[in-house]
Amino acid sequence: MNIVLLDHRQTQSDLWTISAKRQLEHLQQHVQIQVGDTLKVGVLEGQRYLTEIVEISEKAVRLKPLQEDAVPKKLPVTLIVALPRPKVLRRLIMDSVTLGVEKIILLHSYRVDKSYWQTPFLQQLNHYIELGLEQAGDTIAPKIELYKRFKPFVEDILPGLITADRPAYVAHPYAEQSMPFAIPHPCTMIIGPEGGFIPYEVDLLVKNGCQAVSLGNRILRTETVIPYVLGRLFSTS
Amino acid sequence: MNIVLLDHRQTQSDLWTISAKRQLEHLQQHVQIQVGDTLKVGVLEGQRYLTEIVEISEKAVRLKPLQEDAVPKKLPVTLIVALPRPKVLRRLIMDSVTLGVEKIILLHSYRVDKSYWQTPFLQQLNHYIELGLEQAGDTIAPKIELYKRFKPFVEDILPGLITADRPAYVAHPYAEQSMPFAIPHPCTMIIGPEGGFIPYEVDLLVKNGCQAVSLGNRILRTETVIPYVLGRLFSTS
Repeated sequence: MNIVLLDHRQTQSDLWTISAKRQLEHLQQHVQIQVGDTLKVGVLEGQRYLTEIVEISEKAVRLKPLQEDAVPKKLPVTLIVALPRPKVLRRLIMDSVTLGVEKIILLHSYRVDKSYWQTPFLQQLNHYIELGLEQAGDTIAPKIELYKRFKPFVEDILPGLITADRPAYVAHPYAEQSMPFAIPHPCTMIIGPEGGFIPYEVDLLVKNGCQAVSLGNRILRTETVIPYVLGRLFSTS
Repeated sequence: MNIVLLDHRQTQSDLWTISAKRQLEHLQQHVQIQVGDTLKVGVLEGQRYLTEIVEISEKAVRLKPLQEDAVPKKLPVTLIVALPRPKVLRRLIMDSVTLGVEKIILLHSYRVDKSYWQTPFLQQLNHYIELGLEQAGDTIAPKIELYKRFKPFVEDILPGLITADRPAYVAHPYAEQSMPFAIPHPCTMIIGPEGGFIPYEVDLLVKNGCQAVSLGNRILRTETVIPYVLGRLFSTS
């Protein structure tokens, strides 16, 4: 937690209030806060602030805002991922948010176990988004969309995301073209499930405007490939 | 598991033998192997092979080697990391191995909890290396070294790793210079603990030949920063 994320209601009066149990516990156990300390705070969908702690009680910490701070920029990328196992999903959301992905689309595909769509984690995405924002020092939640049918998504929705200035890349181990690097434009990045997309799916993606690109001959896990590819694509910033 | 890793003793006769419980369980539960199927195998510190399954019993799978395959190249990087929490250590080793890091050095630093050096995971590094190699389809284990004292390492060992053609970068949020990308030469990459290196440590690293470089104003977790930086540094391959 590198900032404490508050919502608008907590920042209405002159003194702001941290009252969420998770945040209070973190501050007391890991940061050992004291009155007079400064604390970095973010207002959800708003700015970041440096604040001063003016009061600490068991159920609340009160803060005085001192100065406004810039929120880190997003990466201009839409990440489309085949829905992974619940445990991986949690990390994937947190990491993608921390890295600054603008929009995340979770998609069904042939090798996605149907039971994954039943996981309670899908009801708790906001919690993992919050953790990711607090790690990064960001305040703007990415958009998240879910598509439980592969073909209608690829044929009807995906083409609308692709333009000449905003290509879509699908990571595919057997592609001849390599994944580009240090691109000076936004893009859409598509990552398959464990075991990969099946050939029919890769074909359909390519037919609908995606470029199949290879990341070399090491096979990476979904949760590893995402930071690896983002570091590669957006290495100029 | 994208290859099954065997050691030399298992590949001495005409038919090779998989007998490790973990590997047999994986093959039976997740791959549902049958006699006649092909299977990718790697010989630890040796080559990769395509094999054919000729016999399946409860305690062993026997294979006939069909053809030799190339082992993926390593990334020419030495990764120096402040020893993280045990749970993170496990993932960090697996991911670094999967990504092809040549050599990993685990280092003490001021913000590393001393108890981390007592974790049983440090006795099981070979197991996590094996999992990482099986994920990547690699057979060559990276070298791993442990240094429990920061200053002697930085003053006596580190300078020997740095040359004009092989610089060392320390990721530091307040550095003015940015982390380079798509470098055409090997390097050493140094990643601090949760909360970062303290100023004294950054100064000592710089005094001993490291370049402090920034990754922008998002604060990433250790396990996220490693694939992110490797994707950025080695994006030409």
